Amino acid sequence: MEKNFVKPSILPGFMELTPKDQIDFNFMLDTIKKNYEKYGFVPMDTPIMEKSEVLLAKGGGETEKQIYRFNKGDTDISLRFDLTVPFARFVAQHMGELNFPFRRYQIGKVYRGERNQKGRFREFYQCDIDIIGNGKLSIVNDAEIPAVIYSIFKELGFENFKIRINNRKILNGFFNALGISEAGDVLRTIDKLDKIGEESVRDELSNTLSEEQVTSIMKFIMLSGNNSELINSLEQLGVEDEVFLDGLKELKSVIEYIGCFGVPEKNYIIDLKIARGLDYYTGTVYETILDDYPSIGSVCSGGRYENLAEYYTNQKLPGVGISIGLTRLFYQLREAKLLKSKDRETLCDVIIIPMNDDLNYSLETANKLRAAGIITQVYFEGGKLQKKMNYANKLGIPYVVLIGDDEIKDNVLTVKSMLSGEQAKKSVDEVIEELRK
Amino acid sequence: MEKNFVKPSILPGFMELTPKDQIDFNFMLDTIKKNYEKYGFVPMDTPIMEKSEVLLAKGGGETEKQIYRFNKGDTDISLRFDLTVPFARFVAQHMGELNFPFRRYQIGKVYRGERNQKGRFREFYQCDIDIIGNGKLSIVNDAEIPAVIYSIFKELGFENFKIRINNRKILNGFFNALGISEAGDVLRTIDKLDKIGEESVRDELSNTLSEEQVTSIMKFIMLSGNNSELINSLEQLGVEDEVFLDGLKELKSVIEYIGCFGVPEKNYIIDLKIARGLDYYTGTVYETILDDYPSIGSVCSGGRYENLAEYYTNQKLPGVGISIGLTRLFYQLREAKLLKSKDRETLCDVIIIPMNDDLNYSLETANKLRAAGIITQVYFEGGKLQKKMNYANKLGIPYVVLIGDDEIKDNVLTVKSMLSGEQAKKSVDEVIEELRK
Repeated sequence: MEKNFVKPSILPGFMELTPKDQIDFNFMLDTIKKNYEKYGFVPMDTPIMEKSEVLLAKGGGETEKQIYRFNKGDTDISLRFDLTVPFARFVAQHMGELNFPFRRYQIGKVYRGERNQKGRFREFYQCDIDIIGNGKLSIVNDAEIPAVIYSIFKELGFENFKIRINNRKILNGFFNALGISEAGDVLRTIDKLDKIGEESVRDELSNTLSEEQVTSIMKFIMLSGNNSELINSLEQLGVEDEVFLDGLKELKSVIEYIGCFGVPEKNYIIDLKIARGLDYYTGTVYETILDDYPSIGSVCSGGRYENLAEYYTNQKLPGVGISIGLTRLFYQLREAKLLKSKDRETLCDVIIIPMNDDLNYSLETANKLRAAGIITQVYFEGGKLQKKMNYANKLGIPYVVLIGDDEIKDNVLTVKSMLSGEQAKKSVDEVIEELRK
Repeated sequence: MEKNFVKPSILPGFMELTPKDQIDFNFMLDTIKKNYEKYGFVPMDTPIMEKSEVLLAKGGGETEKQIYRFNKGDTDISLRFDLTVPFARFVAQHMGELNFPFRRYQIGKVYRGERNQKGRFREFYQCDIDIIGNGKLSIVNDAEIPAVIYSIFKELGFENFKIRINNRKILNGFFNALGISEAGDVLRTIDKLDKIGEESVRDELSNTLSEEQVTSIMKFIMLSGNNSELINSLEQLGVEDEVFLDGLKELKSVIEYIGCFGVPEKNYIIDLKIARGLDYYTGTVYETILDDYPSIGSVCSGGRYENLAEYYTNQKLPGVGISIGLTRLFYQLREAKLLKSKDRETLCDVIIIPMNDDLNYSLETANKLRAAGIITQVYFEGGKLQKKMNYANKLGIPYVVLIGDDEIKDNVLTVKSMLSGEQAKKSVDEVIEELRK
């Protein structure tokens, strides 16, 4: 009988990994999770589907067109397009059950029906943290966020990266002092400085601003120097706008405290150009750039906002947070050959290969190894030894334990290191000790 | 200005947890994950959305009505309703990149638009493992699966549970020997024995079968005794059907090896009534029942199948696997007050409360604690000490470190155990040592 098979494939724009990549991906995800937890963030998990009216309470914007939205029966459903909106909904909904400051992390998939292009995914992981205050929230939190970013990228194996820090109040106050009331367009323009260059930014600004205004802005965003020099330059600008001065004070605090959190000077820098596109950031903003691969863009961004859940409650909930777009980051690191790969097809530390039909001793050994925290697989299938060794080799399992008549009789294990090729007889305890290293 | 707020709420039939429950849920999930990994299963992650034609290749059935299916542009999309179909698709699609036997675990959300009722969820976690052979797969794998189940439920804090084991070939062969060619209905009927009782099963069978057939079946499914007694009884039934004998041989092997895997006798039992609804199981089948709460039903089920991916490839891929429906399990344990709760609102081991404005020493201390693997939060907000202690207390943080002028001067920490109420001055190293315990 001829069968008609359905071609096994996934939707375009979705990422799916085979074991080696998945192991690398999970290592990154686990590293992020562990560091979020280390700083006292609690886990959260919200449904992937929400009521459209709730998810789109803010409405409008580019994102709305990309949303996966459908009806099931009478229900108008949307898939979440970020983790921030569900978080705002969650906090407003569960206010009474939460303790503030509330620190949560959430790692989960979000959905955007973006145009299908290389490096852009329609399903991707976001890894978010936020600290929310009830009514107010200390500026020191803004200094701790870079410490979390630092811990993560350090542990992921990166040395050369910079957390760029700015404060929206400095920008807003500065523009205000220049008599520019609608700073939105200006912010969007200067945000493009790295992409389009100084001249193009100047040209674009000149469309709507006076020459004097453009000159001031260009001078401002081209200010350079180390962190304390920049703070100095900002103080010496003589801007007397209160919002500006408030932002400068905040930025000074943040920069002062970051050092106490153990972040090395070379890993954070004030960057006055950073505004972040999202319109709800109101204070500190962050971007993170890999020095050796700036073209990848920011690998971790976020900032301070006045009011997390303004569409759901009149409770004032200021917060500060960041997001790592892990799927995109993983893809880009892999493409750029920057991924620190484990180069493993399995998590196994050891595989036991029984050489005869008597499995008891092999299974007992496996039990002991597992009880000692060693990830152990037993090879149960038939076939020649060579085939079994090939299997261990292809999977990248570092140790093979061979068990035949002699081993059972003498109560020992023949252990082969697949890296060194060395082979020796050892007791279970010796093997456990060696593998634990 | 009056604002119209959108009421923050989620869709009916979805589960969302606040921190205390989420921590308990994640403990269960992590325990399952860790044990899956311990036995050499590799992680896998597939998209939540798939092409409808791929996901529904098998077609028909009750499940199809429940599927979340919609169009985005020209694309007919469905949300996965289990992890098995995507896994079959994955293996068929990536055959050449995988090494067999292929052991994978997948923990992820699946979607079914079930009728809204207590304890049933439209989004729920499944935690699956499968071992897939290329062409064939040793029966010893079928004996290892109960060892994995045992490890998990033991570590989750359960002592009294039973893994019920049967073999579909025994059932099929037995019915065949009785001249019953279409065993499907009979299987479905006897599967209901626990629910509807002996008499009702007998009545239902009598609708289509002869008295002699019904008597034989009832005698068969009421066979009792311990595992070796049951094997004996089955051998003495004198059934000569080859499928039956093959199944009996497999069951004997499985029962023999389970012991070697370290599963205590009291935790596994042959149960000839178990058939499992799913029509692709062809050999060993499992259910897991909590002795003290049988009404919860099976908390972990699965079995052996001939052919994983028959709709996508003509490659024969036999496998054996299980699934834990974690969302439902968590809900039921919580409802039945059987959940071993951590009773914590945070994962924090310690909170540092600075008593003056000098944060340096507090932040340095936090860095040291975190570097030692201790989950540490620093309280940055203003307010009275009592308010800060209340916060620590409400979150259930076991240790509070107080840092004021004296502590900074003397380079010590004042540590309060929130459990014992004891308070003492200690060095950072002493605190680390105490907290590591």
